Amino acid sequence: MNKLRNLLPGHNSRRYLLLLCCLVWSAARAEEIQSPNKQLTLSVVLQDGGVPAYSLTYKGKPVLKPGTLGLELKNTTSLTNGFTQTAATRRSFDESWQPVWGEVKTIRNHYNELAVTLTQAATKRTMLVRFRLYDDGLGFRYEFPRQKELDYFVVKEEKTQFALNGDHKAFWLPGDYDTQEYSTVTSNLSEVRGKMKAAVTPNASQTTFSETGLQTPLMLKGNGLYINIHEAALVDYSAMHLELDDKTYVLESRLTPDAVGNRAELQTPCLSPWRTIIVSDKAADILESKLVLNLNEPSKIKDTSWIKPVKYVGVWWEMITGKSTWSYTNQDNIKLDSIDYSKTKPNGTHGANNTRVKTYIDFAAKHGFDAVLVEGWNTGWEDWFGKHKDYVFDFVTPYPDFDVQELNRYAQSKNVKIMMHHETSGSVRNYERHLDTAFQFMNKYGYNAVKTGYVGDIVPLGHHHYDQWMINHYNYVLTKAADYKVMVNGHEAVRPTGLARTYPNLIGNEAARGTEYESFGGNNADHTTILPFTRLIGGPMDYTPGIFQTKVSAYNPQNNSFVHSTLARQLALYVTLYSPLQMAADLPETYEKHLDAFQFIKDVAVDWDDTKVLEAEPGDYVTIARKAKGKSSWFIGSSCDENGRTSKINLSFLEPGKKYVATIYADGKDAHYEKNPQTYAIRKLNVTSKSKLTQYCAPGGGYAISVIEAGR
Amino acid sequence: MNKLRNLLPGHNSRRYLLLLCCLVWSAARAEEIQSPNKQLTLSVVLQDGGVPAYSLTYKGKPVLKPGTLGLELKNTTSLTNGFTQTAATRRSFDESWQPVWGEVKTIRNHYNELAVTLTQAATKRTMLVRFRLYDDGLGFRYEFPRQKELDYFVVKEEKTQFALNGDHKAFWLPGDYDTQEYSTVTSNLSEVRGKMKAAVTPNASQTTFSETGLQTPLMLKGNGLYINIHEAALVDYSAMHLELDDKTYVLESRLTPDAVGNRAELQTPCLSPWRTIIVSDKAADILESKLVLNLNEPSKIKDTSWIKPVKYVGVWWEMITGKSTWSYTNQDNIKLDSIDYSKTKPNGTHGANNTRVKTYIDFAAKHGFDAVLVEGWNTGWEDWFGKHKDYVFDFVTPYPDFDVQELNRYAQSKNVKIMMHHETSGSVRNYERHLDTAFQFMNKYGYNAVKTGYVGDIVPLGHHHYDQWMINHYNYVLTKAADYKVMVNGHEAVRPTGLARTYPNLIGNEAARGTEYESFGGNNADHTTILPFTRLIGGPMDYTPGIFQTKVSAYNPQNNSFVHSTLARQLALYVTLYSPLQMAADLPETYEKHLDAFQFIKDVAVDWDDTKVLEAEPGDYVTIARKAKGKSSWFIGSSCDENGRTSKINLSFLEPGKKYVATIYADGKDAHYEKNPQTYAIRKLNVTSKSKLTQYCAPGGGYAISVIEAGR
Repeated sequence: MNKLRNLLPGHNSRRYLLLLCCLVWSAARAEEIQSPNKQLTLSVVLQDGGVPAYSLTYKGKPVLKPGTLGLELKNTTSLTNGFTQTAATRRSFDESWQPVWGEVKTIRNHYNELAVTLTQAATKRTMLVRFRLYDDGLGFRYEFPRQKELDYFVVKEEKTQFALNGDHKAFWLPGDYDTQEYSTVTSNLSEVRGKMKAAVTPNASQTTFSETGLQTPLMLKGNGLYINIHEAALVDYSAMHLELDDKTYVLESRLTPDAVGNRAELQTPCLSPWRTIIVSDKAADILESKLVLNLNEPSKIKDTSWIKPVKYVGVWWEMITGKSTWSYTNQDNIKLDSIDYSKTKPNGTHGANNTRVKTYIDFAAKHGFDAVLVEGWNTGWEDWFGKHKDYVFDFVTPYPDFDVQELNRYAQSKNVKIMMHHETSGSVRNYERHLDTAFQFMNKYGYNAVKTGYVGDIVPLGHHHYDQWMINHYNYVLTKAADYKVMVNGHEAVRPTGLARTYPNLIGNEAARGTEYESFGGNNADHTTILPFTRLIGGPMDYTPGIFQTKVSAYNPQNNSFVHSTLARQLALYVTLYSPLQMAADLPETYEKHLDAFQFIKDVAVDWDDTKVLEAEPGDYVTIARKAKGKSSWFIGSSCDENGRTSKINLSFLEPGKKYVATIYADGKDAHYEKNPQTYAIRKLNVTSKSKLTQYCAPGGGYAISVIEAGR
Repeated sequence: MNKLRNLLPGHNSRRYLLLLCCLVWSAARAEEIQSPNKQLTLSVVLQDGGVPAYSLTYKGKPVLKPGTLGLELKNTTSLTNGFTQTAATRRSFDESWQPVWGEVKTIRNHYNELAVTLTQAATKRTMLVRFRLYDDGLGFRYEFPRQKELDYFVVKEEKTQFALNGDHKAFWLPGDYDTQEYSTVTSNLSEVRGKMKAAVTPNASQTTFSETGLQTPLMLKGNGLYINIHEAALVDYSAMHLELDDKTYVLESRLTPDAVGNRAELQTPCLSPWRTIIVSDKAADILESKLVLNLNEPSKIKDTSWIKPVKYVGVWWEMITGKSTWSYTNQDNIKLDSIDYSKTKPNGTHGANNTRVKTYIDFAAKHGFDAVLVEGWNTGWEDWFGKHKDYVFDFVTPYPDFDVQELNRYAQSKNVKIMMHHETSGSVRNYERHLDTAFQFMNKYGYNAVKTGYVGDIVPLGHHHYDQWMINHYNYVLTKAADYKVMVNGHEAVRPTGLARTYPNLIGNEAARGTEYESFGGNNADHTTILPFTRLIGGPMDYTPGIFQTKVSAYNPQNNSFVHSTLARQLALYVTLYSPLQMAADLPETYEKHLDAFQFIKDVAVDWDDTKVLEAEPGDYVTIARKAKGKSSWFIGSSCDENGRTSKINLSFLEPGKKYVATIYADGKDAHYEKNPQTYAIRKLNVTSKSKLTQYCAPGGGYAISVIEAGR
C-alpha cells in the first residue's frame, strides 16, 4: 500500500508504468486461502523482483502485514528473490487423531492448505512454500524437492519475516543459542532494546546474539489480538530465534549457527520446520490450540504401550537447595578412569545414598507415585561442571553408597520405578559413546525413564545447544531410547516443537526456568501465568512443582531464596502447567506435615480426556479445568500474578445431571507469596454443571480443585 | 653467548650487574646429561626471565642451539617464563622388549633421563620437562602434575623450539591440519617460503597455516648431520606441526586447532606427547632408530595372539585407476535411509561384485595371501564425497551384488579372509554411532581387519583431521576395535607416532602419498627414497606397492598417469617400506602374466627378526636387508631416485658358514621408470656372508633379492 502512494502521478512516469506492471503481475499472482471457519485469511504474493511474501488477517484485522520469505544460501545464489510462481495447489484436510498422552482424548487436525511452487529462473531451482491455515492459526514451511540444480546446500540464514502491525506487548526472553532459562520480560516491542541488558542474567552456558534478539515461543498482544510465534517439527535443522526490527516491528528468523557459522546443512529432498503463528482475540484460544502438535508427523513408534504418564518424587530438591549434594566426596579435579572411590573420604552429604533413596521409595509407594528420580547416583559429580570435560560421566557406575541392584529390587517390590538420570554436562560425544551401554544398563535393572541433562557449554566447543548438530543429537537419543523402550525427559535441551507427537516417548522437557530457580533467587510471581503462553506452546514442561516449604533456608540456612508462590498455587500448577510427567518436588518429611494439602497431588491426574481454559490472560492469570483420562473426575487449577485477584468460574463443563464433590485447596486468609505463603484452606462443596464459583487468589497465589463424582 | 657480548662494559652498569647475576644464576642451574654412548649431550638452562631452554650436541657438534620451551595458555598466565628450577632428577634405563610385530625381534630401550621440575612463582604452578637421551637421539615431553593451581587448562599454543644451527637441507611437506598427501619438496630451509605455493597441491581436505609451515616427521641434513624431528605417543593432544623462522632457522611447534581455535584442552595430571629429535652422522642410523617406538607405552592389549601381519590383495587398484567403480549405480544425491537399490539401475562397472571378488579370493588362495580387501562393497558410494554429508555410510549394508555371507564363507573355505573397509568420509559422529554394530557385523561374518578412511573435511565442520578431538577419535576406534579383536589400517588419519607399540592392532596407516597417487598424476621418482626418512619414522605405511602394469591407461584409456617406478623397484618396496601389512596392489590378471617376478611378492616376509640398513641417503637411495621372522631367509630391497646408480652391498649380515641362494630381481637393461619401466631380469646366485654384490639400478628403479638358505 505504501508503495502505491509513492506511485502517484508526479513520479517518473516510466518507472511508474514499469512498477505498476509488476504490481499488476504480482496482484495477478496473489493467492489467498481462508481457514475452515473463514476467520483467518492468508495472502501470498510475489513482490517486486520476485520476492515471495505473505500476510495474515483475523476477522478482517491484520495479524501480519506482508512479510518476505526466503533463505540466504552459502556460496551460491540465495533463495530470496528472482522467483516466479510456477504452481499453486490447494487442499483441505480434516482428520482426528488420538495422542498417546495429552490434554484431550482426540485432536482434530483441520486445515486448508496452499502450496506455492516458486522457480528461480537464474538458477533453475525450485522451492515450495506450504501453508496450512487452521482456525487457530497458520503454519508454513519451506520444501526443497530433489532436483538437479539443488542437491546439497548450506543455509547461511533463513529470512522469514513476521511483520507485526504495531508496537505490541510482548512476553519475551532474550534470544540465545544456548539457554532459555531467563525470566520473561513483559514490555512493548519498542522497549526490548532498553531492557535487554538487564534481561540477560548469568547462566552456565549462554550465547546471546543481538540487543533485539528474542526467543520463541514468543507471545504477543496487540490490536486486540493474541499472537504466538513458534515453530513445529524441528528435525534436521537448527532452532529458530527472532530478530526484532524495533522501528518497523518486523521480526525475522535467526537460526542457530554451528561451529563454522552454518545455520543448516541440507540435502534435497528436504524440509524446513514449520513456522507457526497462533492467533485469536481470546487468550484462552492460544492455550487450547493444537496447531503445533498437528503440524508434526504421527508417531513413528509403532508399539506405544510402554509409554505411560508418570507422577514421581525425587532425590533432587534437597540437592537444589544445598541441603545435600550430588557428589559423594569433596574432592575436586577427578578423572573417572583413575579415581577409586573406595579410597576416598565420603563427604557425608551425599543425597543418593541407600538409606535416603529407600525413604523416597517408601514414600512413593505409600502415596501411590509411579517413580523416584535419583540424581547424583553415579560417579563423577565432584567435578562435572563448567570444565568442558570430555569424559565426565560413564552413566553406569554407581557411587559406593548406591546399590543399584538392591534399590531397584526394593523399588520394584513396592511397585515403584527408579527414574534414571543421565547428566551429560554437554559432552555429547561422550554420551553417545555410552548410550547403548547406558540403555542396556537401564533395561537390566528395570529403569523405564531417563531424565537427561545438558548443563554447560556443548563439548566439542563451538557447538550450541540449539544448532543442527545438537538437534540431530537430541532426536538420536529419542530414537535410541525408543529402541530400548525408554521414556525421555530432556533438560537443557532445545525447547520442544511438538515432536512428542512423533516420538511420544519424549514425555518431558525443561527449556525454561523451572522450580529450581526458586532456589537460585526465585522466579517472578507471574512466571507461571506466562509459561502456558510461551514455553508450553511447544510441549509439556517438567516444571517440578509442589514445593510446600517455600523458604529454602529451612533446608539450607545459607540459602535465602524463597519460592515466589503460595502453597495453594503449587497445587494449581499440576493442572495449569500441563505435563504427562509431574513431580512432587518437595521432601517427604515436608509432605508428611501437610498431608491434607498433599492429598491433591496424590489425586490429580497426569493424563486427560479433556481440557477447558476457563480464564486466561498472559502475565495475569490462568485457570484451567481438565478431565482425568477415563474417569469422570475433573481437576481445576488457577494461578495468578503478584497482584492477586478474584477468580470467577462456571462449572458448566461438568456432565449435566451428575453430582460432584469439589475439594477446594485455596490460599488462606492474608496469604501472600512472599509474606505468608504457606497458609491455605481446604473446603468441600457439592457442585453440578450449573455451579458457579468465586474464589480469591492471593498475590502470587492460586487454587486447586478436585471435582469428584459424588459416591466415587 | 650473544647476550654476553652485549654486556661488555660501556653498557649501563647497573643493568649489567643485574643481568650478570641472572646469567650466573642461570649458569648455576644448567643441567647436562649424556647419551649412554656419550656421543649426545643435552643441556638444559633457565634463560633470563626464567625461560626454560635446551640444546643438543652430537659428537661435539651442535645439533640444536638453545631453544626455548613452554606453552601459551588461554585466559590465564602462560607456562612460558617466570620459572625457577625446583628439582632435577636423573635416571638411567636399559630394558629390551619384544614387539608383537616389527622390523627386529628385540628392541633395546636404553636412555639417560633428566627430569627438570619448574615452578612458576607468580602462579605457584609446577611443570616438569622430562628428557630421555638415547644413543640415537632425544625425546622430551611436558608433564603437568595434579596441583591445586592447575586443574583444567587450554593450550593456546605450544612454544617448543627446535633451534637448528644453519640453513639445512630439508625434506619437507607443507604444514597442514588436514592432510599429509603432498609431494616432498627437497630444498634448503631458506627456500621453503619461495617453494610453498607450488608445494600445496589440491586435496579433498586441506588447511595450510603458513608460508613457512612444515609437517613432521621432518628430515634435515646439515653440518654433516642427519636430523629427524617428530613426536611420539600422540594421545589426548593435537598433532604438532612446525613453523620455520627462515631468518634464524628456528622451528617452533604449531599445534592443530579445534573448532574454536583451542590446541589442547587438558586436565592435570597430564602429559604432552614426546617431542623427538633423531640424530646421527650416518643416514642409515636414522632408519634404524627405534626411539619413537621406545617412547611409547607398552602394549595395553593383553592378549595379542589375534594380531598377525597380513599380506593381501584387493578390489582396489581397479577403482583407483578408473577401470571399475566403488558405486553400484550412477545415481547422484542419494539418501541411505530412503534409497532402494533393488529399484536402481546398476552401472555395470561396480568392482565389488560377487564374481570379481571370487576371482580375487581364488587368486589370493592360489598364491598364499592372507586376505582380500574389498572396497565399495557397501551402499552409499554414489554420493559420499565432498558433500559434508552426515549419514553417509552405515558400514553394514552390502550392495545387491555383494553377498556378504556367501563371499565370507567362500573365502574362509579357502583359508582367506575378506578385509573390511570402513570409509567414513570424515563424518566421525556417524562412524562412532555405527561402530559397535559395524564391529559386531565383522565378528559375525569373520572379518578380522578393517581399513578405515577419512576422505574429505571432518564433519562436524570446524574440526581438523589432526586436532585433539580427532586424535581422541582415532584412538577410540583403536580401543573399540581391540575389544572386538579387529586390526586397523587407518587411511587419511593422523600420521603415526609409534602408538602401535601401545595398540599393536594398529597395523597400518596411510598419512602420506601412497601408490594411489601414481594414478592421480604420479609420485616423484625419489618418493620412496624419502618416505623411510619421513613418514615411516612414526610407524608402518600401507603404501600398497606391487604395480606391474605401470601404465594406468592399460586399465583406463582416459587416465594417462603412470607409475614413476620400474617394475623391479615395485618389488623392492616390500622391503624398503616396512609394514606388517603389505598389499600386492595390481590386478590378478596382470600378475598372472608375470609370475616369475610375482614370486618375490609371494616369498617376501611381512614380519622380521632383524633389519640392516645397508645404504641410505634421503632422496637418493635406500637399500635394506631384513631377516624373515623365525626363518633363516633374508630379503633385500633397494630403491633409487631418477638418476639411477650402482649399488654395492656386502652380505656380511648372513650367518657365517651357511650357504644361500640369492634370487635377484633387477631392472632390465635400459630400464627407466618413464621410458621402459617393465623390463626386468631375474638371476640366481649362490652367496655366503663373505659375498659382495654390485647391482645397477635404473633411473627410478631398484632391485629386490630373496636370500634363501641353500637346500630350504
